[in-house]
Amino acid sequence: MEDFKVEEKNEKLTDKNTLLHQIQFMTQYINRLKAKQASKTEIDAVSSYIEQLKQELSVYIRNGDIPPKASLLLKPPKGTRDYGPEQMAVRNKVLNDIISVFKRHGAVTIDTPVFELKDVLTGKYGEDSKLIYDMEDQGGEILSLRYDLTVPFARYLAMNKISNIKRYHIGKVYRRDNPAMTKGRYREFLQCDFDIAGQYDPLIADVECVRIGYEILNRLDLSNFCIKINHRALLDGLFEACKIEASKFRIICSSIDKLDKEPWELVRREITVEKGLTEEEADKIGSYILRSGREELVNLLLKDEFLMTSNSAKKGLEEIQQFLHFCTIYKISYKIKFDLSLARGLDYYTGLIYEFVLESKNKDESVGSVAAGGRYDNLVGMFDPKHKTVPCVGISIGVERLFSVIETKFSKETEKVRIIDTQVYVASAQKNLLEERMKICCELWSNDINAEQSYKKNPKLLQQLQYCEEYKVPFAVIIGERELEQGIVKIRNISTREEEDIVRENLVSEILKKLNLNL
Amino acid sequence: MEDFKVEEKNEKLTDKNTLLHQIQFMTQYINRLKAKQASKTEIDAVSSYIEQLKQELSVYIRNGDIPPKASLLLKPPKGTRDYGPEQMAVRNKVLNDIISVFKRHGAVTIDTPVFELKDVLTGKYGEDSKLIYDMEDQGGEILSLRYDLTVPFARYLAMNKISNIKRYHIGKVYRRDNPAMTKGRYREFLQCDFDIAGQYDPLIADVECVRIGYEILNRLDLSNFCIKINHRALLDGLFEACKIEASKFRIICSSIDKLDKEPWELVRREITVEKGLTEEEADKIGSYILRSGREELVNLLLKDEFLMTSNSAKKGLEEIQQFLHFCTIYKISYKIKFDLSLARGLDYYTGLIYEFVLESKNKDESVGSVAAGGRYDNLVGMFDPKHKTVPCVGISIGVERLFSVIETKFSKETEKVRIIDTQVYVASAQKNLLEERMKICCELWSNDINAEQSYKKNPKLLQQLQYCEEYKVPFAVIIGERELEQGIVKIRNISTREEEDIVRENLVSEILKKLNLNL
Repeated sequence: MEDFKVEEKNEKLTDKNTLLHQIQFMTQYINRLKAKQASKTEIDAVSSYIEQLKQELSVYIRNGDIPPKASLLLKPPKGTRDYGPEQMAVRNKVLNDIISVFKRHGAVTIDTPVFELKDVLTGKYGEDSKLIYDMEDQGGEILSLRYDLTVPFARYLAMNKISNIKRYHIGKVYRRDNPAMTKGRYREFLQCDFDIAGQYDPLIADVECVRIGYEILNRLDLSNFCIKINHRALLDGLFEACKIEASKFRIICSSIDKLDKEPWELVRREITVEKGLTEEEADKIGSYILRSGREELVNLLLKDEFLMTSNSAKKGLEEIQQFLHFCTIYKISYKIKFDLSLARGLDYYTGLIYEFVLESKNKDESVGSVAAGGRYDNLVGMFDPKHKTVPCVGISIGVERLFSVIETKFSKETEKVRIIDTQVYVASAQKNLLEERMKICCELWSNDINAEQSYKKNPKLLQQLQYCEEYKVPFAVIIGERELEQGIVKIRNISTREEEDIVRENLVSEILKKLNLNL
Repeated sequence: MEDFKVEEKNEKLTDKNTLLHQIQFMTQYINRLKAKQASKTEIDAVSSYIEQLKQELSVYIRNGDIPPKASLLLKPPKGTRDYGPEQMAVRNKVLNDIISVFKRHGAVTIDTPVFELKDVLTGKYGEDSKLIYDMEDQGGEILSLRYDLTVPFARYLAMNKISNIKRYHIGKVYRRDNPAMTKGRYREFLQCDFDIAGQYDPLIADVECVRIGYEILNRLDLSNFCIKINHRALLDGLFEACKIEASKFRIICSSIDKLDKEPWELVRREITVEKGLTEEEADKIGSYILRSGREELVNLLLKDEFLMTSNSAKKGLEEIQQFLHFCTIYKISYKIKFDLSLARGLDYYTGLIYEFVLESKNKDESVGSVAAGGRYDNLVGMFDPKHKTVPCVGISIGVERLFSVIETKFSKETEKVRIIDTQVYVASAQKNLLEERMKICCELWSNDINAEQSYKKNPKLLQQLQYCEEYKVPFAVIIGERELEQGIVKIRNISTREEEDIVRENLVSEILKKLNLNL
């Protein structure tokens, strides 16, 4: 490993041919490491070194010094990926299920551009702003790719002076994060948001958002989850009761938010050493936020004298109480866990917050949060010239995680997902029947039947039938010279391999009959 | 107008407050112009001046000199737009129709990232490369937004060594063109492509692509169109017969492509004055490309001694002949017009090309091309390290144009498009019935019925029913104290205003019965 470090120091001095050589050499080396199953740390180190070499090389390519090698182009950008037919079939199936739940609750949908004026995004994401993709200034407006769908939604509401709407939005968002593709973290990924905006009575919209998350996971056959809830006013109230400065509330929340991955000792150290709380304050906070429960915990805390010194804490607890009652009506209370350590990373939440956590049978492979959201009453006001705001509450479905969970599930099943919807394959048993096949296809298409044929003039029957088996086409229409002469066609059921002769003129009605039976 | 020009010369010297003032002043001025219905040229001049002022101002904003004014942020980037619920409803309906036709022909779907390595796009679009959106170099790869879906498709095929696939791809593409939003030309717009890749027998896949365009337009109830076809080999053969240098073939094609908008005299001038052909050569070309017809023209040209000196022309004509025969089998030949002036702008076509032109009843408002495509056999080879190619043919549906045609159609109808799918609205006639409404909603959702209610504790009955009428919710369930006491609910048919009492326990089954009848 020492050699690499020496190399690293020479950066920018290496000439282009040497660079090309080094990349080639290191790529061979990494393949050898993989072949002998070297440790992940070792492979990662080499891989990041190759990445660095390529970056250096890109300077030369940009300057037009050397023609880019075709093979270097053959990849999607770092942190992104193509989706092939199988992946798209799973993704579309899952999305359709999710959309049908959104529609069950009366949502409309909107769309916004993939980029926004940079200033729209500025000051909305705190530290994470560094992850925003900027566009090159090509003369004109300064643009950035959207980082989420929530800020564009707020901009849309303010711009159009919309005071109430219930909408879903599915679209790709962009973050220049360090991609951890093995963990399913990408720089381009799909978001899937449902939000209710409008001035309404407390918690009625909030509990519907949680019910929607519940319905979606059930619909996807992922019923093994729990719903953590908490309230920003309760957390703020706790900090207030501890006499912590208000300016520190949000940064403490960010630390607390790590409690699902880190032990309290680490978080405690972070809020004392890094964020300047006293040991006493930290312990006081710890004595509350490590608790979780249901109604009984709410009742207990409502009688807690220390906490009740804060009106904010009282208000938060009362809302949680009301919320739990609504959950009973919506038959989801058995899933709910009131968890004081739930803080949510984003700054803009102002009320009830929630997170859906998928529980894995295998304790080691935690999938974690698959849906989350909460109330954010002040975001729209940031865009309104008169700071008129529109209260909002929403839920964001972690579709990328759901896709990978469901892809894994499918991959374990013997049945493959169907990637095409073809109902009939039109095949020929002998040569010179292309035009006859074309006539049949045309007749089927005209009757709204999904039909395919080979694009070869004289395809082999075996290959045509293999296509049907591979792609699970239910029926094949087979024609040959005998059939043509007798004015019939053969219909083959691909899974049972049964064949039947049908009068040519009755083809469409016979196929429709069989397709209906097959449903 | 003179004043503006003086201002323009002072660029970069104007201070920020003056700029803000000027923008404000000019905005008032443009509104006055619009009010008194000034000429478009006049308004455009002022509007482009405002654009320029804003650009100057953006320098200050970028430097953090002045806080961006909230009102300046309230717009999507130039040349882009948001889509509200009504537009999305139309767009999704049209897309679903299109996708169902793609699936009828057995297509799978894929997706690729919205940006590509810049080098992937370089050298593919000729002059139009200047319209590509580049990303800022934030350290790492040099990226650009995709310009179309065809080049990413070719990159995908080469990268994954896919030798045959039939896929559709729907996605947004980006072009820094001068937006002509009144003409429906935007910088961000949706593309909708269907392509067949693979080494097959001639024209079988090509004619299916054309049949797909035909089915889509018919499905969208736009049957008033014609399909222009031509062949790149025929055009090349014609130039060859005229003894024109091969290097000029593509730039002459670009000129000829303008014949649908410009008269021959202008195009003739362009190819002689700008592109250096002799008058004689131009007239010879003109004597061919201004012709159009069907089989009889093909037969005539096949006997044309001058044209037949070129093998390429002969091959092109023979393919057209075969293609027309296939069109008869696919029952689309009545729509086909063999038009020698059809050239298509893009460089990469190599064979048969086609364009679907929508004919407007009103001669003045020509919609023009709504679908187009052709064969491109060499594009994939540009990405393959060994230049191994995969022959392709495809059709691109001009969905943005179709959306606006269909939006206009809908806007003329009295019936509005439904933007929500709510089947039942749960309303209360008196106060204090929120929990009862919630129970009913929950029961309906659990039975897959699309149901909504007000998010207010005590909404007014009139407002609840108005919502149903505005959004065409077919049924309302109405509860009141009387109903609660008697164990019944009232079901109201919104369009007929008929009401009916139903036993509470039978609510779900009664609703399902009514919904089935209502289909």
